[in-house]
Amino acid sequence: MTSTLAYATTSPTAPLAPFSFERRAPGGEDVAIDILYCGVCHSDLHTARNEWNNTLYPSVPGHEIIGRVTAVGSRVKKFKLGDTVGVGCMVDSCRHCQPCTDGLEQYCDKGFTGTYNGSLYGGGENTYGGYSTHVVVRESFVLRVSHDASQLAAVSPLLCAGITTYSPLRQWGVKPGHKVGIVGLGGLGHMGVKIAAAMGAHVVLFTTSAGKREDALRLGAHEVVVSSNAEEMATQAGRLDFILNTVAAPHDLDAYLSLLKLDGTMTLVGAPATPHPSPGIFNLIMRRRRLAGSLIGGIRETQEMLDFCSAHDILSDIEMIRMDEIETAYARMLKGDVRYRFVIDMATLATPAA
Amino acid sequence: MTSTLAYATTSPTAPLAPFSFERRAPGGEDVAIDILYCGVCHSDLHTARNEWNNTLYPSVPGHEIIGRVTAVGSRVKKFKLGDTVGVGCMVDSCRHCQPCTDGLEQYCDKGFTGTYNGSLYGGGENTYGGYSTHVVVRESFVLRVSHDASQLAAVSPLLCAGITTYSPLRQWGVKPGHKVGIVGLGGLGHMGVKIAAAMGAHVVLFTTSAGKREDALRLGAHEVVVSSNAEEMATQAGRLDFILNTVAAPHDLDAYLSLLKLDGTMTLVGAPATPHPSPGIFNLIMRRRRLAGSLIGGIRETQEMLDFCSAHDILSDIEMIRMDEIETAYARMLKGDVRYRFVIDMATLATPAA
Repeated sequence: MTSTLAYATTSPTAPLAPFSFERRAPGGEDVAIDILYCGVCHSDLHTARNEWNNTLYPSVPGHEIIGRVTAVGSRVKKFKLGDTVGVGCMVDSCRHCQPCTDGLEQYCDKGFTGTYNGSLYGGGENTYGGYSTHVVVRESFVLRVSHDASQLAAVSPLLCAGITTYSPLRQWGVKPGHKVGIVGLGGLGHMGVKIAAAMGAHVVLFTTSAGKREDALRLGAHEVVVSSNAEEMATQAGRLDFILNTVAAPHDLDAYLSLLKLDGTMTLVGAPATPHPSPGIFNLIMRRRRLAGSLIGGIRETQEMLDFCSAHDILSDIEMIRMDEIETAYARMLKGDVRYRFVIDMATLATPAA
Repeated sequence: MTSTLAYATTSPTAPLAPFSFERRAPGGEDVAIDILYCGVCHSDLHTARNEWNNTLYPSVPGHEIIGRVTAVGSRVKKFKLGDTVGVGCMVDSCRHCQPCTDGLEQYCDKGFTGTYNGSLYGGGENTYGGYSTHVVVRESFVLRVSHDASQLAAVSPLLCAGITTYSPLRQWGVKPGHKVGIVGLGGLGHMGVKIAAAMGAHVVLFTTSAGKREDALRLGAHEVVVSSNAEEMATQAGRLDFILNTVAAPHDLDAYLSLLKLDGTMTLVGAPATPHPSPGIFNLIMRRRRLAGSLIGGIRETQEMLDFCSAHDILSDIEMIRMDEIETAYARMLKGDVRYRFVIDMATLATPAA
């Protein structure tokens, strides 16, 4: 057992605060990791506040983990001491069902084990996430990181925001010649823009914030549409092959469905706490359009995404924070005031400010 | 010009009544058809009552037409006098856009010309449908019918109900080994059951009416689930590869989305006058499910469907009515009191009851 420092919350209304607990000693297939950086995902906040009604307390969020290997079990083959590694949203799954066998652990029939909050659907044994100094993870859920050492903080958001956008873009075959819409320029959206552009698509970024126009172009978007501007929206009607919608707040889906070509798909990766207004069925029927969902990605695909991002020099745009700034970061995240992902420097947990 | 008897309505509240108008003389590419039978589709009623707010009056509904060729234009190659033919929901389209070039005239960029009510989206020149003695249609929108002469009345519903269910079943690759749900056992649903079974799928029929259980099994369903029975519904959770939802009334889509396997699709072909309750996004995200729409089918695919139904001896279960019984038929259709499609014997229009 390893005593581990962390930040946790004990109720939907309690602020995150220092907490300590024991991690298991690494077993034969385990990798022990000192955490260097952990990205701050909107799911962390949903869980801390119990907005999905499934939070197990105390809750230690964090599933965008970058760290260094400090010990490996006797049967571990892929990692050795000192390796730089990543851990994303999952630390285990049943490993036997069809989705697991197919490398789609995120859709495990029994529900994968989340890096925090235990089983995805709650009710299992609790797990403690990356807002901590140390983690022990089964080898098959640990990712290789081949980015340069100086880039590691900006790699951490790839473990959730990166794979969540990469997977549907791959699933729906985005390629050169495609015109792809990305809705929302937040943590997920800014990764979606970078990855879709690297896949060779013509990228149209949709935002409610006219002030993000220059930034979106800098990140790789070819066009920017301010979604409140009906004239700008109309120029895209029926022109997009695929839309990746990253917005987690309820909004009018029809405004985007109507921009799809025949047989076009809009995939939702944001999970609002209350439903979107009901989409109009005519928009689906009249152009054989599809509305789909997608959840992170499997371990094999997450490795593929990390390697793709390394090869294309793709990083997240981040703002580094101290662990004790997490509540301020949450408050700013709620206002959309982050460009584009907070990352916790985990050294600040072990050695707090004076 | 050919004087044509018909049944028409002049306002959302006026009953259908006798009406006469002139059909164009057949041009070089036209086929003139004496109408033998016309199926009664729910769209006829939506249009007659202006429930989609796009009706052009006077309105002559009817787009499930079976008839006999009485004249052909000089450039017509596929049809000759005396041929038995069908006309479905479309009588023309732009013929130049990508969907038209691809045989997907139903998704014509300019909107196809409906067999009645002109342009699909309204606002074009009005067209008069199959509740009439005679119709003139461009050759490329006329279908060959190879069913036996004694079966023709029961073939007419294939032109809309048949193709509307056949097309999405084909589009989403239904095949032996698949478990397919059909929601609703009405005009569309009963065709969906027959066609999906003929494609080799294991068919699960979902109905609100326990009284339809025996009938569904007779029509070809392998299982029947009464959708109000939570236990029966639960047995199907996560088990269906594809769902064809034919219900035109607003209902809870989540109850069905949750029955889909990973990567499963539910396609909607019913268009409710008011929206369905908003589907939960988690249901889409957590199994990468898709909600899609589909509109009838192209001319090439409609011919394929007619040939498939002829080869598999598939007909609609019908109840024949006289033209002057149409308002009673509408009233019964609204109560779901038809097994499973009304078909008008058009001889009763030219020679009304004493």
